[in-house]
Amino acid sequence: MSLRVAIVGATGAVGRTFLSLLEERRFPVGGLRLLATSRSAGETLPFGSERIPVEEVSAEALAGHDIAFFSAGAEAARQWAPVAVERGATVIDNSAAFRQEPDVPLVVPEVNGHRLADRPRLIANPNCSTIQLVLVVAPIHRKVGVRRLVVSTYQSVSGTGLDALAELEAQIQGAAAGREPEPRVYPHRIAYNCLPHIDDFLDSGYTREEVKLILESRKILEEPNLAVTATAVRVPVRVGHSEAVNLTLSRPVNPDEVRRWLAEAPGVVVLDDPAGRVYPTPRAAAGRDEAFVGRIRRDVSQPAGLDLWICCDNLRKGAALNGIQIAEQLFAPAAPSVPGPAGTQ
Amino acid sequence: MSLRVAIVGATGAVGRTFLSLLEERRFPVGGLRLLATSRSAGETLPFGSERIPVEEVSAEALAGHDIAFFSAGAEAARQWAPVAVERGATVIDNSAAFRQEPDVPLVVPEVNGHRLADRPRLIANPNCSTIQLVLVVAPIHRKVGVRRLVVSTYQSVSGTGLDALAELEAQIQGAAAGREPEPRVYPHRIAYNCLPHIDDFLDSGYTREEVKLILESRKILEEPNLAVTATAVRVPVRVGHSEAVNLTLSRPVNPDEVRRWLAEAPGVVVLDDPAGRVYPTPRAAAGRDEAFVGRIRRDVSQPAGLDLWICCDNLRKGAALNGIQIAEQLFAPAAPSVPGPAGTQ
Repeated sequence: MSLRVAIVGATGAVGRTFLSLLEERRFPVGGLRLLATSRSAGETLPFGSERIPVEEVSAEALAGHDIAFFSAGAEAARQWAPVAVERGATVIDNSAAFRQEPDVPLVVPEVNGHRLADRPRLIANPNCSTIQLVLVVAPIHRKVGVRRLVVSTYQSVSGTGLDALAELEAQIQGAAAGREPEPRVYPHRIAYNCLPHIDDFLDSGYTREEVKLILESRKILEEPNLAVTATAVRVPVRVGHSEAVNLTLSRPVNPDEVRRWLAEAPGVVVLDDPAGRVYPTPRAAAGRDEAFVGRIRRDVSQPAGLDLWICCDNLRKGAALNGIQIAEQLFAPAAPSVPGPAGTQ
Repeated sequence: MSLRVAIVGATGAVGRTFLSLLEERRFPVGGLRLLATSRSAGETLPFGSERIPVEEVSAEALAGHDIAFFSAGAEAARQWAPVAVERGATVIDNSAAFRQEPDVPLVVPEVNGHRLADRPRLIANPNCSTIQLVLVVAPIHRKVGVRRLVVSTYQSVSGTGLDALAELEAQIQGAAAGREPEPRVYPHRIAYNCLPHIDDFLDSGYTREEVKLILESRKILEEPNLAVTATAVRVPVRVGHSEAVNLTLSRPVNPDEVRRWLAEAPGVVVLDDPAGRVYPTPRAAAGRDEAFVGRIRRDVSQPAGLDLWICCDNLRKGAALNGIQIAEQLFAPAAPSVPGPAGTQ
């Protein structure tokens, strides 16, 4: 089998990760077209031994594909995803454009891969922070019932994009040289700083990023009333998002029991040996395929509570890898859904 | 009035901050002795136009002081604080050595300054993360009753000390040069990373830092059964600790009401205008005297919940400034307890 693939938004941080993962996972690519806005058209990107030209997205360019991976923002997705579907492609969109549409499945294959059974033609890829959260929370929820979640995130700048990675470096090198480059990507300096501000603010005082985490978790876990609150914070890390998560459960659990459940959960690696200084870090998660969980402990503040800490590569499983796993499940079910050796610190 | 002052642990990050704050606040210093371990003895540190020699701590050196500020770790405090008290000094200790002793007051002047009324001779200075938390939580607790707290911290490396600041810089400059210096101060690289590990791990799975935050908050708020859980995380920030805090209250509150209460709270500055991109950051809090609070919003996950975000300079109000304010209240009550103009981004 060979599949004709398009990547829309190919030159971004997630687009480039799609490209390298297609190769790394030997995805059965029978044709590859890289699309982007006119600004990036004309560049070339490496794939195997070739360099593939980046073309401007258009209705013509979107015709003739089996799969189109979109990572081009919500506006481009709203404009072009329906065109790609109409012209025959199955679209897997990484933006927030369709995630809350009732008839568009929002899928993390290890958690709700059954939503792919009727072969939808438009599938939404969840937000990076949501994917790593539900990978860990779903197995606990199935065993014991999660009643409420309090999530604090520590999100890397690569979640914003390549320009944010460049801004972090420029600010750090500027600080070393006694200069202070004006922030452009973020409203305040991100080097040596934390910004409790990801995506736009809403009237409720939450940011869109926090609301995504709340609503997407509910949709993926199929618990429309699940109680969730979140504070989303940008930290000066390049790649890898972290989350401190407090769970209220339906009954008290033993942390050992939870470690056993999570050790068997697909796409999850337990790293939890505090005495050996073993716990997840975003840096160790970067470049890896799984969500890493540790610091699993009984919450002393409530009778049936649990605290834990999750790290995951936001460009891979948090974005491109999850999209490719969706495609694998739809088109190439023989491919392993979560490869890679178990993680270590 | 003039007071004979000793600083024990004068060469550390907090010790140096004590020294600069004594000068900045025109503390009535009538004699100043800088003490440290033999390793640092022989150095000199600037105070006003002078340079003061650092001497090795001893029973003789601890005699003849009105006040001794200790910032030398728990072991040194256990050994030398009683000696200083016996020889006439009032000791304000920044270590964890005495914080949970029932007869030692643990004081944040704005919150429980009444514990100084009977002029104790040994006072414990709380942990940095606790001080900024209770400064903001106490005024809310007085108005409406706090039932439970979930705290996630984002703590700067200066909380560890000067060697940790140097390690962060060495790792960042090493990364820029393609090298990777071996971590010494932290068990894993801190540059571009987050470590969910501050102080030692306990059998419960919590760290000592997390337990400090829980127990010290209860003691200062005089609520021995207050439900608190915490995850303490080190982030690659130089100075300034941040906290994402979720509160369960006795009744629903309006965020505007909370902003009004906090606007009147001593030592607290409200920075909460999301539309104007105004919220606290650790970088803006560094060098300032107050705890800054923002992102105040109704928690959608429970009927009487609140989320907020606090930043504070961990070396100043989180350590040395709080100690000096205790001394001011005891010895120089005319001095302003929380000076400085209101903060801005």
